[in-house]
Amino acid sequence: MADHPTRAASVFVHPQALCESSTIGENTRVWAFAHVLPGARIGRDCNICDHVFIENDVVIGDRVTIKSGVQLWDGLRVADEVFIGPNATFSNDKYPRSKQYQARVLQTDIGRGASIGGGAAILPGLRVGARAMIGAGSVVTQDVPARAMVFGNPARIVGYVDTRRAVPGLPPAIPEAPGAAPTSVRGVTLHRMLVAVDLRGSLSAGEVPAQVPFAPRRYFLVYDVPGKDVRGEHAHRRCRQFLVCARGSLSVVVDDGTASEEIVLDRPDVGLFLPPMVWAVQYKYSSDALLMVLASDPYDPDDYIRDYDEFLAALAR
Amino acid sequence: MADHPTRAASVFVHPQALCESSTIGENTRVWAFAHVLPGARIGRDCNICDHVFIENDVVIGDRVTIKSGVQLWDGLRVADEVFIGPNATFSNDKYPRSKQYQARVLQTDIGRGASIGGGAAILPGLRVGARAMIGAGSVVTQDVPARAMVFGNPARIVGYVDTRRAVPGLPPAIPEAPGAAPTSVRGVTLHRMLVAVDLRGSLSAGEVPAQVPFAPRRYFLVYDVPGKDVRGEHAHRRCRQFLVCARGSLSVVVDDGTASEEIVLDRPDVGLFLPPMVWAVQYKYSSDALLMVLASDPYDPDDYIRDYDEFLAALAR
Amino acid sequence: MADHPTRAASVFVHPQALCESSTIGENTRVWAFAHVLPGARIGRDCNICDHVFIENDVVIGDRVTIKSGVQLWDGLRVADEVFIGPNATFSNDKYPRSKQYQARVLQTDIGRGASIGGGAAILPGLRVGARAMIGAGSVVTQDVPARAMVFGNPARIVGYVDTRRAVPGLPPAIPEAPGAAPTSVRGVTLHRMLVAVDLRGSLSAGEVPAQVPFAPRRYFLVYDVPGKDVRGEHAHRRCRQFLVCARGSLSVVVDDGTASEEIVLDRPDVGLFLPPMVWAVQYKYSSDALLMVLASDPYDPDDYIRDYDEFLAALAR
Amino acid sequence: MADHPTRAASVFVHPQALCESSTIGENTRVWAFAHVLPGARIGRDCNICDHVFIENDVVIGDRVTIKSGVQLWDGLRVADEVFIGPNATFSNDKYPRSKQYQARVLQTDIGRGASIGGGAAILPGLRVGARAMIGAGSVVTQDVPARAMVFGNPARIVGYVDTRRAVPGLPPAIPEAPGAAPTSVRGVTLHRMLVAVDLRGSLSAGEVPAQVPFAPRRYFLVYDVPGKDVRGEHAHRRCRQFLVCARGSLSVVVDDGTASEEIVLDRPDVGLFLPPMVWAVQYKYSSDALLMVLASDPYDPDDYIRDYDEFLAALAR
Amino acid sequence: MADHPTRAASVFVHPQALCESSTIGENTRVWAFAHVLPGARIGRDCNICDHVFIENDVVIGDRVTIKSGVQLWDGLRVADEVFIGPNATFSNDKYPRSKQYQARVLQTDIGRGASIGGGAAILPGLRVGARAMIGAGSVVTQDVPARAMVFGNPARIVGYVDTRRAVPGLPPAIPEAPGAAPTSVRGVTLHRMLVAVDLRGSLSAGEVPAQVPFAPRRYFLVYDVPGKDVRGEHAHRRCRQFLVCARGSLSVVVDDGTASEEIVLDRPDVGLFLPPMVWAVQYKYSSDALLMVLASDPYDPDDYIRDYDEFLAALAR
Amino acid sequence: MADHPTRAASVFVHPQALCESSTIGENTRVWAFAHVLPGARIGRDCNICDHVFIENDVVIGDRVTIKSGVQLWDGLRVADEVFIGPNATFSNDKYPRSKQYQARVLQTDIGRGASIGGGAAILPGLRVGARAMIGAGSVVTQDVPARAMVFGNPARIVGYVDTRRAVPGLPPAIPEAPGAAPTSVRGVTLHRMLVAVDLRGSLSAGEVPAQVPFAPRRYFLVYDVPGKDVRGEHAHRRCRQFLVCARGSLSVVVDDGTASEEIVLDRPDVGLFLPPMVWAVQYKYSSDALLMVLASDPYDPDDYIRDYDEFLAALAR
Repeated sequence: MADHPTRAASVFVHPQALCESSTIGENTRVWAFAHVLPGARIGRDCNICDHVFIENDVVIGDRVTIKSGVQLWDGLRVADEVFIGPNATFSNDKYPRSKQYQARVLQTDIGRGASIGGGAAILPGLRVGARAMIGAGSVVTQDVPARAMVFGNPARIVGYVDTRRAVPGLPPAIPEAPGAAPTSVRGVTLHRMLVAVDLRGSLSAGEVPAQVPFAPRRYFLVYDVPGKDVRGEHAHRRCRQFLVCARGSLSVVVDDGTASEEIVLDRPDVGLFLPPMVWAVQYKYSSDALLMVLASDPYDPDDYIRDYDEFLAALAR
Repeated sequence: MADHPTRAASVFVHPQALCESSTIGENTRVWAFAHVLPGARIGRDCNICDHVFIENDVVIGDRVTIKSGVQLWDGLRVADEVFIGPNATFSNDKYPRSKQYQARVLQTDIGRGASIGGGAAILPGLRVGARAMIGAGSVVTQDVPARAMVFGNPARIVGYVDTRRAVPGLPPAIPEAPGAAPTSVRGVTLHRMLVAVDLRGSLSAGEVPAQVPFAPRRYFLVYDVPGKDVRGEHAHRRCRQFLVCARGSLSVVVDDGTASEEIVLDRPDVGLFLPPMVWAVQYKYSSDALLMVLASDPYDPDDYIRDYDEFLAALAR
Repeated sequence: MADHPTRAASVFVHPQALCESSTIGENTRVWAFAHVLPGARIGRDCNICDHVFIENDVVIGDRVTIKSGVQLWDGLRVADEVFIGPNATFSNDKYPRSKQYQARVLQTDIGRGASIGGGAAILPGLRVGARAMIGAGSVVTQDVPARAMVFGNPARIVGYVDTRRAVPGLPPAIPEAPGAAPTSVRGVTLHRMLVAVDLRGSLSAGEVPAQVPFAPRRYFLVYDVPGKDVRGEHAHRRCRQFLVCARGSLSVVVDDGTASEEIVLDRPDVGLFLPPMVWAVQYKYSSDALLMVLASDPYDPDDYIRDYDEFLAALAR
Repeated sequence: MADHPTRAASVFVHPQALCESSTIGENTRVWAFAHVLPGARIGRDCNICDHVFIENDVVIGDRVTIKSGVQLWDGLRVADEVFIGPNATFSNDKYPRSKQYQARVLQTDIGRGASIGGGAAILPGLRVGARAMIGAGSVVTQDVPARAMVFGNPARIVGYVDTRRAVPGLPPAIPEAPGAAPTSVRGVTLHRMLVAVDLRGSLSAGEVPAQVPFAPRRYFLVYDVPGKDVRGEHAHRRCRQFLVCARGSLSVVVDDGTASEEIVLDRPDVGLFLPPMVWAVQYKYSSDALLMVLASDPYDPDDYIRDYDEFLAALAR
Repeated sequence: MADHPTRAASVFVHPQALCESSTIGENTRVWAFAHVLPGARIGRDCNICDHVFIENDVVIGDRVTIKSGVQLWDGLRVADEVFIGPNATFSNDKYPRSKQYQARVLQTDIGRGASIGGGAAILPGLRVGARAMIGAGSVVTQDVPARAMVFGNPARIVGYVDTRRAVPGLPPAIPEAPGAAPTSVRGVTLHRMLVAVDLRGSLSAGEVPAQVPFAPRRYFLVYDVPGKDVRGEHAHRRCRQFLVCARGSLSVVVDDGTASEEIVLDRPDVGLFLPPMVWAVQYKYSSDALLMVLASDPYDPDDYIRDYDEFLAALAR
Repeated sequence: MADHPTRAASVFVHPQALCESSTIGENTRVWAFAHVLPGARIGRDCNICDHVFIENDVVIGDRVTIKSGVQLWDGLRVADEVFIGPNATFSNDKYPRSKQYQARVLQTDIGRGASIGGGAAILPGLRVGARAMIGAGSVVTQDVPARAMVFGNPARIVGYVDTRRAVPGLPPAIPEAPGAAPTSVRGVTLHRMLVAVDLRGSLSAGEVPAQVPFAPRRYFLVYDVPGKDVRGEHAHRRCRQFLVCARGSLSVVVDDGTASEEIVLDRPDVGLFLPPMVWAVQYKYSSDALLMVLASDPYDPDDYIRDYDEFLAALAR
């Protein structure tokens, strides 16, 4: 075993490990039969378990756990506090052939605090968002948004972490009579709309201001959304919105930066009001879902915050 | 043949006819083998053809044509200028049994200028609206709105008389780019909405005032309308409306009292603006049709004109 | 009655008929209360039955039969050997209005040897092909090909003449808790079954004697019944039956000779008990209906009473 | 008007009626322009309204009402207390042709207390059960059970009277082995094709000359044919054809001028060979039907005989 | 490499292995680059292959094989004779985050004789039953019953080990005529039921005792079972059962403790008789499956044996 | 670490590796913590990465890459230039049980130049064809044809490597008017067929020789092909074929040994001509796909080349 004089004195390298890098932070431990190549850079307080292999062009943050049987190939960037489960598998070449080398490997980014389940496979060139959670055995073929939980082969979003879930069917907080009810997210309210069903068909209606809390200056209708897809993923600085699911069902995840809740919209007599500065994601669209959105303001691209971190920063200001 | 001294001198009764009523207007003709009972009251300039039978409690307006093989039973009220085709059949008892008599016969009203096709059957107790047209051989089991054309067994509305028809698909008057185009009906405009289709689904949108000509104070969503049914059939005194068919298709008949046009809404990138004082009917809903309506005013029952004649009168004021 | 000197000597005109035309072929007969206007031309060996009316611009071939209650309007051309059934109805104006006359009436042609069923309605301007056969009560809206058999409203081709065919919600009387409730028919009871629904599927169950009032010695399952069909129509002398509609819905009419009731079975938690000597008919099967019947006795053809009168007689004994 | 001395003294016959029968019960009334032939037997307390026609071989019970515009033909048996609405139409010949008389007319029985709605048509040879009720404008094509209520065209059972309602909620000629079999039409043969079905899908195949009796020089595929439509309706002078229905089903009517047969093609392992000079019609296409036709000759419009009379004439040469 | 004096003398540890535990049974071998922590307890005759990692709180039975690339984490309990394929992956934390430790790890139990395929992932906190077999690459998200074979992501039951499979369609052992035929499982018989199919629908029937070997005292109907679910999984001490699949299809695995057979029920003319003391499992329900069960005895919870080992013990008594 | 005197001098074995075989070709490198058993035979220029384990009965060609975490078990045959991604998992026993050994292990063959993605699982006894590419995380349960790309659990063919893809819809190379257009594959032409669409249905037709370049002596219809299945996979020595997709869609991969192209057939107005000596594969059948094939010659099993290597050899002669 080679000597690594510049390595932090508090780094622990198991006698049966091969640690050729000296760029390793304090209190990081490298366990038996692990092999770290010279170019790898590893932060502090990391745990590199038995049988891990780390190539040269790899950067690992602080407080990261790499479980056994994992290889980190050139091009991998692992942020702070990431957990990578046993036998999780990475790649840096989409169509690998023996002895054929790419001019430049594909870079994969694992965001801060993300968790990758045991036995999962992550295709090359993807970004896994902050705090995302990838289920065991999943095969990830697309970017994973921040805080999304994904599962399956190919992996699909099945939820968001730390988000309170509403039960499908009418949310219990809504009064039987028309009116508004608060949710666990600041300023977001659920509204019982007027509804009339007779032999000549059905009707859901709402008036300003009794059911719809602002005079709309824009509508949009969203439909034909593939079930696997996610829409929204932004907050508005000023615009208020009012959502009614006219047909089918979908889930809206709302988040005020502190609390987060998943609300199922599956009936036309329920409206969802979104104030400004709430992050919202829509997903789990049924194949027949049709969402009507009324908006308080004309379209203005400057009103959108499309980056979650930027959203958090704006909240903090 | 009995003598009818009070009958207008200009009335013609065929020698082989039996005309026992003396309440018959000028220039009316009663042809061979027809039989009019004493209580029947018939207007002027009517034509009562061969083999017609008219009971006592029957009132017939002016300029009416009753073709051969028709019987008008007690309880029938026939307005001016009605045409009743040969062998058309009426009734005044829903569940007739021999020798069982109702305390009071069901009254059937045929509105001014209506036309009943040959061989049609009209169930008792119905109202056929002004200028309606009932197809030959049809069996009418429901009231027929004014100006409606009905056909089949049971009869369904298939159109409206004197109404210009738009071809399904995008109406040609709509510009390719977003904007409004006039129709043949005063104040009614068709609008090309903003639309975006991508792999993540589709979106139709409109802003106030660019596409939607007023700030909505109310929305309603109409869905699950049976294909045979008709909705609307009213005008608004003040309220303006904006219709977008979000899914499926339907037809809207719009009428300013002078011109009438049938507009097919079958795509979410088309909006239809209805000004006040336009009579509108919606029908031919596909089973999956979903109509979004934005309204300029809160719901006000006094704003509705639900009688076509009242609508015409209000226009004339 | 006018004299018609040029009419063939062998023409028979009933004394109560009005035959104003003299262009009538040999051996043609015109019966009582028929009325033929002067311009009509009629061939030989025709039969013009009672209560027929024939206008002026009508041409009729030889060996034609016009049954009672038929009117032939201007514009009708009837070839040889045509049969026109009673009360069949023609027209020469597509959109008739009283006192509004067309410049030129629509011509209708009935081909040689065609047969028009009683009560049929033929729209104006059509051609009915040779030997075609129009079913009774049909409404003909399109040209009919030669030899076609048509039926319905609107009339559709159902075959060709002379062609060999190759064979190719819980009833209110039921208590909320499991138990039996009487119906208006003697001995017939409705039973609330045990039911359990969970994520692993659903289960309807019944025990002897708590829910099922006899120990079954036979079961049968009825399924794939066309919606228009009726099954049952019999009573049992001794056998008791217990019916559960496991899927879909159907109606059972039960009749004890005095009272009769129609019971909708549309949910698996309802059982229907039929004692002996109750006439039962099942109909209105939905396309997916599946009926389980438990029977107290083995199959015995002598136990069936299949004639309603025999059933009533057996009740009286 | 003939004298009917044996007629009950209490019978009323309107002066304008023709009542030639003397077998008429007490208190029966016969109204204007009605015509009763000598052989008709009518019970007591009946009401025979204006413009009714009653043939000889007709028997009518007591307390029967026959409304205007009805004809009762030979073979009709009307039980007591029947109501027959205006312009209801009967027949005694299923396939009437002018001047072709049946050896024996079809008898129609109307059961005691039945009610036939105005403008209904009753096909011949049927039995309408006691107390049955036939809706106005209905076309009755099947026996009507006692007490059934029927409606529509064709009439279907919609309920039972006086019944409490619960509220709801290869053709055999083809050898088993591949080979050809004759039909009843000259030269037309049915062929069992080679077929292979395995887990990887299914295959129907045919070779020249073993299964397909000529080397094709043309193919065509027919699809998307509306179920109500008819195709073909022609014969070829020289071209031979071979039809395989690859999906769905359709009927082919083949006709050699003497014999005619309807053949259902509903499976891909059957081929139908059409020699020259056979008239063929295709119809009853299922919505998913796909027909492959192989033809012996290139397309030649002169090879088609599109007129059936011309086809018959060409056969006769 | 540390010295382990208390370790059985017959234990083989490869010179390149790290075996820190001394609780290891006779004849167990630990191969190169494997690492066993001090707290692990391993039975006799085990094979711990290259690159295996075993944590402290792990208990492994006798005659167990752990192939290369496997890690056994704290909380894992592995019974005798288990096979764990290469790169199979375990976990003890459902939502792992770096540096966040659970108060108590989730325990996973692998039953005696089970086999886990190469590359499979087993979620934490599950029980894998005795002799179960998990397919290569499967992701196990639910408990696996004893003897079940599972496959896929997520893993679903696809069969049972050592179970004879009947071919879908009519089991060959069933006589063409109604009657019973034995299966390979003691006392379990297949019955051909009476069946009648005509234009008015279809009927499957059975009588006691000819087709159904006991007089039922209870029925139940099972429906709406998700395709992935398993029902039954019990034996009865005394109750006999008779199963008919009225619609759709399902598989029944029957097991007398010695022989086991999977029987497909996919037609209503087949009944399956289950005597007491036969273990039965139902699965592979089609979405439309509807199972009718007739039972000889009322429901009695004490009559059920719901644990397979208890069933085997009861058989042995 | 044992000394291996017969091993090529240029072989590199990392000091921490265990390489017990001496049958290793020039320039092959064996990296840290890898373990090669004595019987393994490895070619030249191979790269055996960290943590790899290779059993005795394993044969590996030249220029092969085995990434970390992979085990090659007895019975594996790896051709030249194969790439095996990290943590890919093999097996040689379908139903492994601890301490139960098969008489003979199942052999798995990985063809020349194939690529196996990271984390993939390959069931035992399969053949992976030359140049095939298996996606990361896939579970391979069937043989993989040469050049096929597979993905998923279970793995399905999603494409062919180095094959030009046509866009669904009409291939742009086809002239608007009927006629033929070349493809990138020698002799393969695309043909615009005659087509007629009218209200009576649609028709696609082709004549010899204008659209179909030979007189067919055989047809076949292919249908009901499971979407996951592949058909064809052969070339003909003499027979020419003409393909028309009558309904649905499918993909045909054509290959002249040099160029390869995937052609989507999804409309009945396009024909595809295949000359002799073109390798063709059909796949991606939609569930409703129906393919008509016309063939120039009768069926002759000797005309088929079913092995791709034999096809290439025949081309080279």
